[in-house]
Amino acid sequence: MKNVSFKVHQTQGKARTGVLHTPRGDIRTPAFMPVGTAATVKAMMPESVAATGADILLGNTYHLMLRPTAERIERLGGLHKFMNWDKPILTDSGGFQVMSLTGLRKLTEAGVKFKSHIDGSEHNLTPERSMEIQRMLGSDIVMCFDECTPYPATEEVATDSMRMSMRWAQRSKDAFGDRPDHALFGIQQGSTIPHLRQESADALKDIGFDGYAIGGLAVGEGQEAMFDVLDYAPGMLPEDKPRYLMGVGKPDDIVGAVQRGVDMFDCVLPSRSGRTGQAQTRMGAVNMRNARHMDDPRPLDEECACPTCQNYSRAYLHHVHKANEIIASMLLTWHNLHYYQELMQGLRAAIASGTLDDFVAAFHTRRAIGDIPVYG
Amino acid sequence: MKNVSFKVHQTQGKARTGVLHTPRGDIRTPAFMPVGTAATVKAMMPESVAATGADILLGNTYHLMLRPTAERIERLGGLHKFMNWDKPILTDSGGFQVMSLTGLRKLTEAGVKFKSHIDGSEHNLTPERSMEIQRMLGSDIVMCFDECTPYPATEEVATDSMRMSMRWAQRSKDAFGDRPDHALFGIQQGSTIPHLRQESADALKDIGFDGYAIGGLAVGEGQEAMFDVLDYAPGMLPEDKPRYLMGVGKPDDIVGAVQRGVDMFDCVLPSRSGRTGQAQTRMGAVNMRNARHMDDPRPLDEECACPTCQNYSRAYLHHVHKANEIIASMLLTWHNLHYYQELMQGLRAAIASGTLDDFVAAFHTRRAIGDIPVYG
Repeated sequence: MKNVSFKVHQTQGKARTGVLHTPRGDIRTPAFMPVGTAATVKAMMPESVAATGADILLGNTYHLMLRPTAERIERLGGLHKFMNWDKPILTDSGGFQVMSLTGLRKLTEAGVKFKSHIDGSEHNLTPERSMEIQRMLGSDIVMCFDECTPYPATEEVATDSMRMSMRWAQRSKDAFGDRPDHALFGIQQGSTIPHLRQESADALKDIGFDGYAIGGLAVGEGQEAMFDVLDYAPGMLPEDKPRYLMGVGKPDDIVGAVQRGVDMFDCVLPSRSGRTGQAQTRMGAVNMRNARHMDDPRPLDEECACPTCQNYSRAYLHHVHKANEIIASMLLTWHNLHYYQELMQGLRAAIASGTLDDFVAAFHTRRAIGDIPVYG
Repeated sequence: MKNVSFKVHQTQGKARTGVLHTPRGDIRTPAFMPVGTAATVKAMMPESVAATGADILLGNTYHLMLRPTAERIERLGGLHKFMNWDKPILTDSGGFQVMSLTGLRKLTEAGVKFKSHIDGSEHNLTPERSMEIQRMLGSDIVMCFDECTPYPATEEVATDSMRMSMRWAQRSKDAFGDRPDHALFGIQQGSTIPHLRQESADALKDIGFDGYAIGGLAVGEGQEAMFDVLDYAPGMLPEDKPRYLMGVGKPDDIVGAVQRGVDMFDCVLPSRSGRTGQAQTRMGAVNMRNARHMDDPRPLDEECACPTCQNYSRAYLHHVHKANEIIASMLLTWHNLHYYQELMQGLRAAIASGTLDDFVAAFHTRRAIGDIPVYG
């Protein structure tokens, strides 16, 4: 009996809201997963990540296997204990980061040999090894090891890549074994070619997974091409399982993907952009480095309930960013993650009440107005 | 009627415990003031600084006058509001940092002309300007503008420097004016020469201040020479006013100074060392960069109640420090500031109960044992 289950509570059009249940806690969907690459969501205490409303976060297998190593994390009691986060964790397979090590990796049917970006040491990542690492980490949601097909790709390249990923998906499933408290997600590939997406979806369904990711998007194709794929790809996947769009994205990417039937997201944008002075808000992105904030006593967003907006002026955020103070990263990351979770909560509530169209219209209208400067 | 007052509750030998009352809150003494140079205690949320037990923090006039400027902070409602800290703030005069700008500053009887380390712009700092800046910042405890006599100094240099600081102390008092809700502290100079320390103390007492700092120490003379001065200098200052030893120090410096009658301290050590991986503990300093922590499941200090020690292993602290993660600075700074405040609380309680000698003996014994490695 599997102790991981997914239930769709309401739908509106293709959009769904529900709950993905795991032994470590429920994940309300549509869900956004903050990225905790190296066993920390950068510049955030885990209590603060939870306070933003996150039900789950993502860890990166590639980074953790190299440092501090999966073996060490297992000896220390697993990733949850190590990083002081007791809610669910999803780990990627390591494949995406390894593939991007151009010149430092060799891809074969067996897997990928690569050199560490930290110390140049040699490593081998295969479906079996990825499953072993993710088990040692104690990941609640394990991702299949796959190749993220580069974009653009010829049909031949996309076909070969996808089919190898499907063989790797079977090997991942076999290696994962019987773990009732943990989920294994397959990953659909097929580039932007509908019949390849269908072939991939069918192959994954034949193997059978607890959830299905849509891979190979958000790799440079642009929002229009991504939405074109999302117009059909989610519908190829089982309705009764969660659908996860990997590495997405900007707020408007997420809204469009939710409208198209996606349930889960992850992206470094809110945390990474926070560290470079960029705030994500309902008004769009606001750059706190800009000198116009220097004397602005207003909060970043007057309607935001996050600690940053409750307690600090734009002038302060500008000052601490210019002074390279760590609190600049702390405050902007907190705000950005809060905004993302508030957006997800808004989407969930709108789907539940059948008002998603109004919600999306208001979302776009507010962004079109943008930030309103203070005139002096 | 002055709304700032100091009351000594108990003494043991020369050591005192009491309360410095200000309209923004009481400061329990002996007190340690974390340093918030640029309107932030680095890597800490102000709520976290308060949670460590800090009653007051220190802001740096030099840094704030250059960026974001005192004028801007005043327009924005003062430093407390700007940095979201509603307890008392002490500001230094800017003198110490300006004097250390070797080659970029010119000292005369009027004051100091200098160039900004940020953009090379020219500035002028005088007793009058320092008082103006500290008023604009909204500082609760204002420090006189003085020259921190370099160490070592000939008697002639030390005499001239001290006497100019005393003339500046009078100018500071005159410029400070009548501000019943704010305190002005004088600063004793005189290097390591007893009769100069006496002359300085007498000059300051003639002018009359709300508190008295012992300046010109912790500038390279070493603990032994510092304690030699502290054997007599505090006793030259009024018993009914707080005594503040500027820029001190290491935990054992503080303990020795409290035994010699000092009430207030500030130092960047707990925050700065936290950012370089050094933990301050009752066992002494522990370097988290050391590879011996790599597999250590123990907390930094098993007897410490801070969030870092409650929730994280040494292995985690080592990992995030090696990975240059911001949380490494956050967690170690929090621990270090917690340790310092716990030390101050221990000193206050020991003086109150007449057990200071036992407390100090236990303090030194535990440090002599040092950290106990796990053998495997």
